[in-house]
Amino acid sequence: MSKPQILVFGECDDWDLQPLGELYELHYVPADNSLGHLSSETKEAIVGIAFRGHSQLNAAIMDEFPNLGVVANYGVGYDTIDVAHASSRGIKVSNTPDVLTEDVADLAIGLMIAQSRGIVGASAWVRSGEWQQHGEYRLGTKISGKKAGIVGLGRIGRAIGERLVPFGMDIHYYSREEKDTPNWTHHGDITELAAAVDILFVSVSGGPTTKGIVGKEAIEAVGPNGLLVNISRGTTIDEGALLDALESGALGAAALDVFLSEPNLDKRFLALDNALLQPHQSSGTVDTRKAIGALQRANLAAYFAGEPLVTPVN
Amino acid sequence: MSKPQILVFGECDDWDLQPLGELYELHYVPADNSLGHLSSETKEAIVGIAFRGHSQLNAAIMDEFPNLGVVANYGVGYDTIDVAHASSRGIKVSNTPDVLTEDVADLAIGLMIAQSRGIVGASAWVRSGEWQQHGEYRLGTKISGKKAGIVGLGRIGRAIGERLVPFGMDIHYYSREEKDTPNWTHHGDITELAAAVDILFVSVSGGPTTKGIVGKEAIEAVGPNGLLVNISRGTTIDEGALLDALESGALGAAALDVFLSEPNLDKRFLALDNALLQPHQSSGTVDTRKAIGALQRANLAAYFAGEPLVTPVN
Repeated sequence: MSKPQILVFGECDDWDLQPLGELYELHYVPADNSLGHLSSETKEAIVGIAFRGHSQLNAAIMDEFPNLGVVANYGVGYDTIDVAHASSRGIKVSNTPDVLTEDVADLAIGLMIAQSRGIVGASAWVRSGEWQQHGEYRLGTKISGKKAGIVGLGRIGRAIGERLVPFGMDIHYYSREEKDTPNWTHHGDITELAAAVDILFVSVSGGPTTKGIVGKEAIEAVGPNGLLVNISRGTTIDEGALLDALESGALGAAALDVFLSEPNLDKRFLALDNALLQPHQSSGTVDTRKAIGALQRANLAAYFAGEPLVTPVN
Repeated sequence: MSKPQILVFGECDDWDLQPLGELYELHYVPADNSLGHLSSETKEAIVGIAFRGHSQLNAAIMDEFPNLGVVANYGVGYDTIDVAHASSRGIKVSNTPDVLTEDVADLAIGLMIAQSRGIVGASAWVRSGEWQQHGEYRLGTKISGKKAGIVGLGRIGRAIGERLVPFGMDIHYYSREEKDTPNWTHHGDITELAAAVDILFVSVSGGPTTKGIVGKEAIEAVGPNGLLVNISRGTTIDEGALLDALESGALGAAALDVFLSEPNLDKRFLALDNALLQPHQSSGTVDTRKAIGALQRANLAAYFAGEPLVTPVN
């Protein structure tokens, strides 16, 4: 029996391509949105997509594959996939929840400390010789004992909160419904949450329902001594308002792993000295990338075995 | 009654100088080891020292002040003060424990994450435009679930351990005596501890008894995939062996806030891309510096009131 044919869509690590190639006949399109070279016979033969990328897998692209049955997403966020359209065609979609939760929460904590304590600037201070020439680096902001807020108390938000507990922080969160927590304070309104805390983490999932959920008022409520940490999606914050507030000082500082038009981020970010900028690397560890690839393959294997997907989206 | 005369020895923030000046007649010598301009009358009149600095307050310097009664150190580490000589002359010495514990532990956690997840290099990757041009930054190393070791389980070591718990880490420590801990594993030997863990924190106090306590064998036992974090004193690690191991790859990476000859650190450090270097800024927050200054003054006040020091060293 011949192997099922799948499209590997988006950049794929060798350690994932190799085991995929053992199970499937692969059509590898590493760059997003360049499917033009695939013949219509190939498109008809493709029954699954191993998807990885920050660009769109929209209805038009899906419909180029008449026999598509499964889209296995590499990553937890699937806001780039038109799941409603997939469902209407009976295409099963999976993602890779949980495996990257710890990495994202770890980075969120690291960004909070790095920004509050000036780790990036202090490193440059040493390496440029300024420590020898000019003495002590400028003082940072203490973290322990401050108040932290978390927008979205899903898996990642909760993992962030748990890591904040031993810093002696008073923990607040926003979610539509109050959740079962160890004495963390629930807020039903994001601006109210932002006003109550010193450091605000954004950890809601992306997609249309959370677009701009952290708006101008909430950003300004974090305040001139406050810190905003975004490890979710660039869409969740009103980016124009964020840039305005960082430029004016209405918001003290930000640490951002995600941007609206990444990797082509708004040039205004590059002029800021109160923003720590990261290249969407929240799940960027070897351990976790391997675990994500393995779960993506497990979903494809379940589909082709006629079993329920391991981590289904629809 | 005239105010007691004190020497303010070492750089002092305005927010400390001002309240000190209200209580005492100040002789301010901001640069270490340049007391030559003080007259012998002044030296005789000086009865206390508010000391701050990383250079020595040795017996010879103390003996320039025949009527010295108290040395109030700014900071927890007093390895630069000859306490034995002070005691022999009946000079009381104080330090400022506890107030900087949280800041030091916070920075230790931040350095662990920043180095493992490449936060400094990733920031440069974004700001230089390489993210746009070349895509994803190189993958980092996962932290959660790894094994951590702590050399020295005093206040700071314990605060580091507590912060590591929600990262799902297996926690090991070295101390001469086993301590009361939440199921952390005691090791009586530092090399054995280093061999058991992925990340090794050094948090012993400085001074002669801990000089080079983390030696070549221990450094190499952390291993080529391991990370060594030092937020204690430059003296506690065999710095030559550390440089050798970082250069050869026998040690994977280091994150260092302290150095033997700081701020004139060994030039070999600057050539390393596997070392995150910080300018001894572990207590470098505005909140904590103010708390340290207040405790230094409280010790001076207690001495001049004829009461026991608040946080005595001898």
